[in-house]
Amino acid sequence: MKKFYLFIFLLSILSVSCQDKPADQTEPSTDANPVTQKQAVAIVIHGGAGVMSRDRMSEDKQKEYKAKLDEAISKGHSILDEGGTAMEAVMRTINILENSPLFNAGKGAVFNHEGYNELDASIMDGETLNAGAIAGVTTVKNPINLAHEVMVNSKHVLLSGSGAEEFARSRNIVMVDTAYFSTPSRLESLKRAQNKTALLDWEDHKFGTVGCVALDKEGNIVAGTSTGGMTNKRWNRIGDSPIIGAGTYANNKSCGVSSTGHGEYFIRAAVAYDISALMLYKNMSLQEASEEVVMKKLVDLGGDGGIVALDKDANISMVFNTPGMFRASINKEGQKEIKIFK
Amino acid sequence: MKKFYLFIFLLSILSVSCQDKPADQTEPSTDANPVTQKQAVAIVIHGGAGVMSRDRMSEDKQKEYKAKLDEAISKGHSILDEGGTAMEAVMRTINILENSPLFNAGKGAVFNHEGYNELDASIMDGETLNAGAIAGVTTVKNPINLAHEVMVNSKHVLLSGSGAEEFARSRNIVMVDTAYFSTPSRLESLKRAQNKTALLDWEDHKFGTVGCVALDKEGNIVAGTSTGGMTNKRWNRIGDSPIIGAGTYANNKSCGVSSTGHGEYFIRAAVAYDISALMLYKNMSLQEASEEVVMKKLVDLGGDGGIVALDKDANISMVFNTPGMFRASINKEGQKEIKIFK
Repeated sequence: MKKFYLFIFLLSILSVSCQDKPADQTEPSTDANPVTQKQAVAIVIHGGAGVMSRDRMSEDKQKEYKAKLDEAISKGHSILDEGGTAMEAVMRTINILENSPLFNAGKGAVFNHEGYNELDASIMDGETLNAGAIAGVTTVKNPINLAHEVMVNSKHVLLSGSGAEEFARSRNIVMVDTAYFSTPSRLESLKRAQNKTALLDWEDHKFGTVGCVALDKEGNIVAGTSTGGMTNKRWNRIGDSPIIGAGTYANNKSCGVSSTGHGEYFIRAAVAYDISALMLYKNMSLQEASEEVVMKKLVDLGGDGGIVALDKDANISMVFNTPGMFRASINKEGQKEIKIFK
Repeated sequence: MKKFYLFIFLLSILSVSCQDKPADQTEPSTDANPVTQKQAVAIVIHGGAGVMSRDRMSEDKQKEYKAKLDEAISKGHSILDEGGTAMEAVMRTINILENSPLFNAGKGAVFNHEGYNELDASIMDGETLNAGAIAGVTTVKNPINLAHEVMVNSKHVLLSGSGAEEFARSRNIVMVDTAYFSTPSRLESLKRAQNKTALLDWEDHKFGTVGCVALDKEGNIVAGTSTGGMTNKRWNRIGDSPIIGAGTYANNKSCGVSSTGHGEYFIRAAVAYDISALMLYKNMSLQEASEEVVMKKLVDLGGDGGIVALDKDANISMVFNTPGMFRASINKEGQKEIKIFK
């Protein structure tokens, strides 16, 4: 009787290995998520879209931006490569950009009309469609971390102003003095904006928001966005960055998107959600959907800006209708791309 | 020569009337927007979705709610019928609901955790895709009017908190003392919520938000939503009502939508925009798209609530996955419907 069971056991092992082999042979190794191997990872980031031009940005300045984009995306990719979650990769990558004075997020955020910095951020998990966001905080060092905290430790999606800060303190989020966010170049931008007759001049708002979308080995997509908003903004204005569906969206079935640009238009066009909808409902590719929204629908509406996105098969898109967008990506083959202009 | 011109003149009159007649005969009078006649008007409103039941609501209370819904929708319809804009109809209709203590918007708004009322609202114009919204105001009598003011007299879409109130004062919007919003029944709801262990109990939040969608004789669709949010909400929480694409969306090419329910889920599902996207991208009817989003996608996610919507052909949908939704509509034939339960 023992021999019979041993025979059945050996037969079942043989059967399993026979089923596996044809699958391995027919599926090309670069193809998406076969049962026997983990999903290829990919990551894409932006550091804002705007009217930057080669003529007006020194070689040294370009190198400085590219080095920081490189540092950020390499960190995110190494997390993914080592089997870390897309959530972890997006947060740590955005933290590097938030902590740099080069970008309009965290340290380096633009000033509002009243002369201080109001920060917005959001993050979304493509597996569960859970999301967290905060608007108008003034003493939170890394807004993306607070957005994540809202997602995992509150029943809400979007908190704002002093309430969001109270929540941050209750969750031991790192707080800083408001002076931490003050940088000479952003103060200069505010002065320029306020000396113009136009109250809010998009043309002067060259460099924007930061964002990241990552795909991990489990096939999960996470998107996040963090910003100081628009120079000289007034009346506790909230832009698209903390708005799920406008500034940020992620869905494992379609794609993850992070937006940057003239937020009012991105809200009205539901930019991030629309790219996902065009993929799911019209079978567009990620690139087709991104171009349809950014190069047609947003242009028709008059909205300047761009997006970075990636889909469940690790395809990457970086589309913008402005002269430039700080951006970087590492695709599923591990190839890195870092660019500023078209 | 004069006789010749007279002959030509009479001929042209004859020609015009001959062109008109067949059009009138072949096109049924209820059909949408023939060149020779104005668009049929329609309007739909909600006063919140929730777990209301026939057993727990007295006949008198039901009559009281229905009378106010009747007053509001009749006002809106008469504006449309007299050739007024959908924008005017939506604002005046919502004002009636905001000014009634029966609904969770304006007077009658629920209390937040700290014991005061924070109001959110948004409005969107389906012709231009312009939109305005405000979150967390405490002294604005009619939040929908301020949302409209943001749309037409600021460069922003969404203002919040004290900044939104500063903008309101600068635009001569009617302000009231915070005590204006205090009603005994809502204070009672707060006490009940705070005596429970669960911090934010959706079950206790029976009656919600108000909203209106209207189609005017020019074929323009406008949608608007106004709310006090969720009883016992904390940390300056912002729900879906002021979020374009979640609580409110309008597009003359597809439809207008106003949402009511557990806002966090409506944000994550981009409910209002999704209904429009399903119509435009998958050729679903308004009813099919509304049911797909509210009865399938929202239910899968765990989100309670409903929507009212109408499309460019004056079709109306009122779909909810809760036991009841205060709602009323007047269709293109002028037929009125006022209901609370399923």
